[in-house]
Amino acid sequence: MSDYSAFKVELTDHIAHVQINRPDKINAMNAAFWSEIIDIFAWAEDTDDVRVVVLSGAGKHFSSGIDLSLLASVANEMGKDIGRNARLLRRKILQMQESFNVVDRCSKPVLAAIQGYCIGGAIDLISACDMRYAAEDALFSIREIDMGMAADVGTLQRLPRLIGDGMMREMAYTGRNVGAQEAQRIGLVNRTFADLPQLLEGVMTIARDIAAKSPIAISGSKRMIGYMRDHSVADGLEYVATWNSAMLQSADLKLAMVAHMSKQKPVFDN
Amino acid sequence: MSDYSAFKVELTDHIAHVQINRPDKINAMNAAFWSEIIDIFAWAEDTDDVRVVVLSGAGKHFSSGIDLSLLASVANEMGKDIGRNARLLRRKILQMQESFNVVDRCSKPVLAAIQGYCIGGAIDLISACDMRYAAEDALFSIREIDMGMAADVGTLQRLPRLIGDGMMREMAYTGRNVGAQEAQRIGLVNRTFADLPQLLEGVMTIARDIAAKSPIAISGSKRMIGYMRDHSVADGLEYVATWNSAMLQSADLKLAMVAHMSKQKPVFDN
Amino acid sequence: MSDYSAFKVELTDHIAHVQINRPDKINAMNAAFWSEIIDIFAWAEDTDDVRVVVLSGAGKHFSSGIDLSLLASVANEMGKDIGRNARLLRRKILQMQESFNVVDRCSKPVLAAIQGYCIGGAIDLISACDMRYAAEDALFSIREIDMGMAADVGTLQRLPRLIGDGMMREMAYTGRNVGAQEAQRIGLVNRTFADLPQLLEGVMTIARDIAAKSPIAISGSKRMIGYMRDHSVADGLEYVATWNSAMLQSADLKLAMVAHMSKQKPVFDN
Amino acid sequence: MSDYSAFKVELTDHIAHVQINRPDKINAMNAAFWSEIIDIFAWAEDTDDVRVVVLSGAGKHFSSGIDLSLLASVANEMGKDIGRNARLLRRKILQMQESFNVVDRCSKPVLAAIQGYCIGGAIDLISACDMRYAAEDALFSIREIDMGMAADVGTLQRLPRLIGDGMMREMAYTGRNVGAQEAQRIGLVNRTFADLPQLLEGVMTIARDIAAKSPIAISGSKRMIGYMRDHSVADGLEYVATWNSAMLQSADLKLAMVAHMSKQKPVFDN
Amino acid sequence: MSDYSAFKVELTDHIAHVQINRPDKINAMNAAFWSEIIDIFAWAEDTDDVRVVVLSGAGKHFSSGIDLSLLASVANEMGKDIGRNARLLRRKILQMQESFNVVDRCSKPVLAAIQGYCIGGAIDLISACDMRYAAEDALFSIREIDMGMAADVGTLQRLPRLIGDGMMREMAYTGRNVGAQEAQRIGLVNRTFADLPQLLEGVMTIARDIAAKSPIAISGSKRMIGYMRDHSVADGLEYVATWNSAMLQSADLKLAMVAHMSKQKPVFDN
Amino acid sequence: MSDYSAFKVELTDHIAHVQINRPDKINAMNAAFWSEIIDIFAWAEDTDDVRVVVLSGAGKHFSSGIDLSLLASVANEMGKDIGRNARLLRRKILQMQESFNVVDRCSKPVLAAIQGYCIGGAIDLISACDMRYAAEDALFSIREIDMGMAADVGTLQRLPRLIGDGMMREMAYTGRNVGAQEAQRIGLVNRTFADLPQLLEGVMTIARDIAAKSPIAISGSKRMIGYMRDHSVADGLEYVATWNSAMLQSADLKLAMVAHMSKQKPVFDN
Repeated sequence: MSDYSAFKVELTDHIAHVQINRPDKINAMNAAFWSEIIDIFAWAEDTDDVRVVVLSGAGKHFSSGIDLSLLASVANEMGKDIGRNARLLRRKILQMQESFNVVDRCSKPVLAAIQGYCIGGAIDLISACDMRYAAEDALFSIREIDMGMAADVGTLQRLPRLIGDGMMREMAYTGRNVGAQEAQRIGLVNRTFADLPQLLEGVMTIARDIAAKSPIAISGSKRMIGYMRDHSVADGLEYVATWNSAMLQSADLKLAMVAHMSKQKPVFDN
Repeated sequence: MSDYSAFKVELTDHIAHVQINRPDKINAMNAAFWSEIIDIFAWAEDTDDVRVVVLSGAGKHFSSGIDLSLLASVANEMGKDIGRNARLLRRKILQMQESFNVVDRCSKPVLAAIQGYCIGGAIDLISACDMRYAAEDALFSIREIDMGMAADVGTLQRLPRLIGDGMMREMAYTGRNVGAQEAQRIGLVNRTFADLPQLLEGVMTIARDIAAKSPIAISGSKRMIGYMRDHSVADGLEYVATWNSAMLQSADLKLAMVAHMSKQKPVFDN
Repeated sequence: MSDYSAFKVELTDHIAHVQINRPDKINAMNAAFWSEIIDIFAWAEDTDDVRVVVLSGAGKHFSSGIDLSLLASVANEMGKDIGRNARLLRRKILQMQESFNVVDRCSKPVLAAIQGYCIGGAIDLISACDMRYAAEDALFSIREIDMGMAADVGTLQRLPRLIGDGMMREMAYTGRNVGAQEAQRIGLVNRTFADLPQLLEGVMTIARDIAAKSPIAISGSKRMIGYMRDHSVADGLEYVATWNSAMLQSADLKLAMVAHMSKQKPVFDN
Repeated sequence: MSDYSAFKVELTDHIAHVQINRPDKINAMNAAFWSEIIDIFAWAEDTDDVRVVVLSGAGKHFSSGIDLSLLASVANEMGKDIGRNARLLRRKILQMQESFNVVDRCSKPVLAAIQGYCIGGAIDLISACDMRYAAEDALFSIREIDMGMAADVGTLQRLPRLIGDGMMREMAYTGRNVGAQEAQRIGLVNRTFADLPQLLEGVMTIARDIAAKSPIAISGSKRMIGYMRDHSVADGLEYVATWNSAMLQSADLKLAMVAHMSKQKPVFDN
Repeated sequence: MSDYSAFKVELTDHIAHVQINRPDKINAMNAAFWSEIIDIFAWAEDTDDVRVVVLSGAGKHFSSGIDLSLLASVANEMGKDIGRNARLLRRKILQMQESFNVVDRCSKPVLAAIQGYCIGGAIDLISACDMRYAAEDALFSIREIDMGMAADVGTLQRLPRLIGDGMMREMAYTGRNVGAQEAQRIGLVNRTFADLPQLLEGVMTIARDIAAKSPIAISGSKRMIGYMRDHSVADGLEYVATWNSAMLQSADLKLAMVAHMSKQKPVFDN
Repeated sequence: MSDYSAFKVELTDHIAHVQINRPDKINAMNAAFWSEIIDIFAWAEDTDDVRVVVLSGAGKHFSSGIDLSLLASVANEMGKDIGRNARLLRRKILQMQESFNVVDRCSKPVLAAIQGYCIGGAIDLISACDMRYAAEDALFSIREIDMGMAADVGTLQRLPRLIGDGMMREMAYTGRNVGAQEAQRIGLVNRTFADLPQLLEGVMTIARDIAAKSPIAISGSKRMIGYMRDHSVADGLEYVATWNSAMLQSADLKLAMVAHMSKQKPVFDN
């Protein structure tokens, strides 16, 4: 694994555990964070041995969001002309969005394990994951509203696909804290666990389960579900027919069928 | 009623009860199933006397999904060229999708009553229905993942419109069983009933309630809701204005109004 | 404030309280209602001092929906030719939709406080609001089905974005009553309160909280969430980058930052 | 007809002739222009006796576009905060767009007759019309680029639907003059005429031809073509089926059929 | 070949020549026409030996459009209730549309050869073809406007994708005749030929050229172009990548490559 | 400028001249081509001093398309499993598409100057440019059909937005050569020039003209036109209002206004 300053990355049994690793800074997202995450997910995407990604935060909290010093450095780049500043800001925002787009686009499932604070940019990040699981002490908050701005790296774009419209707006307009239980009730997380160790064990169990499936079938399922966020049912049906016209010719089906008949667990190639 | 080998169909009091009728095969979907369902829904669509469709499975289970012998027969049709096999597979998938598209397109509400196993292709089928009701013993599973493939006859296309994104992905990637209570909690079914007799009675009561409404109003409501799955709010508003420009000239409104004034139950034509 | 016959409007501490004010008619929506609401929301939109709108109904009930005498007057305008009647009806429906479109389009959050009956056109209205809160005695019903018609001023277009598809259809096809608790469970309302006084106090507390935020950030957040109802995630990301390229140059960010550092509450301009 | 300061409006034989009437100012679009056009098209829309609109410019030129004094007055409204200025500008632009949206939305065909300069805002305007006809001396130019801005009241949105992408971009990036012949070749105008009198006579002849058709059929055709700018073929087919389900019940079909049989010219009601 | 009453169908050298064969009725589209065309295109679709379809009209004219007696028979089915009549009309129109949708959906290129009248429904038909070629005497007219109705089987939906918006509207609103030369100038036909024999020979030459290409490559190209009518560039790029992930594994590429190297003409399987 | 093996790049007077520079290989697109073009356009995008890009080919021809040796190297990477090969191919195609997406996404206008062969991949490339200009000897051909494949790096996705549907299909199905004159007639190129020197001089003149405009206005115009390829008119209008809410606050407007008043040529910052 490469050496990262904001992350710790491990690959075991087809599962890449990507951990935000700045616990003394409440895992605040600094410049290194925003660039390293792109490299990490490029590696995860290109490494066939990675079948599932688990995303977590080292220490007591998942992440407190963007590091404020980063905002200050952008402010320093600004010049006199409002139009050219707008051009600069637009570029910067699109760049930062790309850091979470790679999570969303990753063809392997990404599971977030969340404890403690999950605030501001951290909500943008987990919104780009496939599934979210939380420890009982987790606290979710769309904190951008208290910074005088509309969230612009994914929360307002992806979260409305995950939770109901009414609660979405309440969270976005008030920035209030939402606990783990309420988060599960509104569909923000799939399940809650008593504490951090149980959370990590629970999420790893699910990850191992997924890693044992056919990677061809998993990546197909992920793309199809992602596609449906933005397309009509008719489009989705045609797309899956085209997709599967190649993928059903894979050996994995026969392997699965034989295993099914012989009541054995199939072992799939990467 | 025509004679079907995979279904039993009855029409009573404007309600077509369409029952998958291969209980000794756990209602597995064989070749007859996939073609007869098209005829049945063509009949239901064209028969004005049918106002509601109830879909259920004979015996202990709703359905175990596609009959594996059917997959084998497709495999036999394949030739040497990968491109031409892809062409063949694409056609076959589109054909099978059509068998559930007719359920989705049917202008009359389709209510699914589900007990026992509801697995694989059965999830594709109930995703194409309007509402789903379950007995306490119902078990839902997107089993395609264990066949080494992405579900391709509707589950991955329609289910994301029915349940939250997070649970959708967990079900699709893990194939795990979801019970009736959890199914209700995540919005997959509207209500649960203690056992099969109560389920059928409950669903029939709802069906009778719907059958007593103006068929003009019901089919309009269904089309409008279906339309919103894939269109913008602005498009939807214009469409309903155009739709109702004809339908509000129907006699059913006056009939309903008179009944409302006289506190009587209106009786609508087919 | 202007003088309205169907509404009572008050502006206090940046919160416009818009109350349907025909309690002896169960707040039925008469001709004055449909035209005055357009003026009220034009005023709310153009008045920078208005930062949040609270919508409620005077008396025991929120509203029983459209006043039936209004339907009768439309019927009187109809002539002999079916095509020209259709043209007339289409225009009328589009006009009435506009009365709720102004609520939806309003760049300030609109919170609905609902007690007692919330029926027919009242569902269309609350579907156009940002958030909905209810007293325990609230009763929701898509009553249009019992008038022999498909709802055409927004319920069938906006409600599918708020609640799950299965319950949406059950409510639309059966017109059955849904109580406050069930409404919360299916996501129709965010929270329930014991009675009307507590409801109003609770909603006003949330409104005050929102009114204290940066109006630039609130209107940006609202537009972004509204945009996501009808656009792809990729479109949404680009749009927010463009939006914020201007808005991040506002003084509100610095103000918020300074307040955050000094642990004080920032005070934002309109 | 109402009294307008920027327009002259006449209604003869079902044709509303709307003439920009500031010839000494090269028909520059001043404040009166932007507000009066809304009233004029509201009148044209609501007046069933208006079946076609012809839009032209008094004097030697069609129009030189927006009056620069108007831009100055907007500049005067601006304050100190960049974010709030952006909010103000966004509102102003949306308002000005609305002045040409009413032309686009008008359910009756709008024919533009163009001589001399057709520059800047005038291109935005004619892009919102149904058809464009030109005198040989007409000169078209997307002049906004020379004002240091991207055109924002419709040219960049509607013109790409009218002419090829390559020429669209050349006109937008260079602002170069395009003559009548070239305009016809690239599809910007339907036909050219030798001079202004022949242009007006030619356009009036086409307008009379259209005014003699069934207004029900004309408005249906216009809405269907407009709809196709922004929707899929499948959506368009469903929409026309729904539209015509009412309109084919109009008496105009029988009238047309009888006239056709008896080789006579039918006379349709408004 | 089956026996058709409204068509004559021949298959030679991979080219299905489908000829409307009611020359004494100016190839008017009667009931047999509308149902037989569905069977013919189902056969063309399923028959791998058919690689191109040429559509033409027997006699002096291509077709005068719908047979008026057919409209009369629909009128006879209508009852008393306007709402139920609308339901009936909507179904009928959707059915008739399907007769041309099969042309549009056909995975093999369809070339129309047009002489003499091409009027009303004939425009709907040729709009669903891939390419159009005309004899010098061809006359095109959207005649529906003179029947008091908006064209509803495809002209207003597909023609706007083929010709410029301005001429589209002129043709739709005026119903005027457009000759072969003008048709070519506005992009309605690809090329004109002096007379019918030269037209047929010219079209057959193009058809033979296409029939000699890889059918896998042709059907892929056709689907991709069809897809772009209704999707974004980004969607199209992803779709072709998925499509070709199977199709580039076909033997046809190697065959083409080898032929290219050896300067020989490749011979592809069906 | 960096050192490129497949390109020669020069920056003079705000114009980046990007020349494919493998004249002895007819500028065939080899591995270096596909990766260097990404770097070049990243540089062009980030370098504010670049305001326009001119793309041309060294020698007698623009480009003969993809280098066949590149296809061979992909074939070598393929393994045994059809599903995993499909996964590999899909990735490769998406990667190659990205090489032309950077041209399309570039915020500065890209003008293509084309002489001699412009074949296969070269059509994909010029379809991603803003405008195309040709020497009289230019020959355009969608040659992929003769390689047994559907074009998959942009031709079938972007060209339908540039030329009419009928000619698009003829070119795609037959692969026939289209000369410069015909290319202009169908809208594929904007203008033709007698020979290569005149072509380059003509294109440079247009480029210089564009480079002298406000870069803020140019990039805004380009994004707005690009946006309209894939969005509705209503979406486009809202987007330009939001875009210009920042950009109209740029100093370039005042500069342009002052220059306009004083009849001088304005000089804009990068």
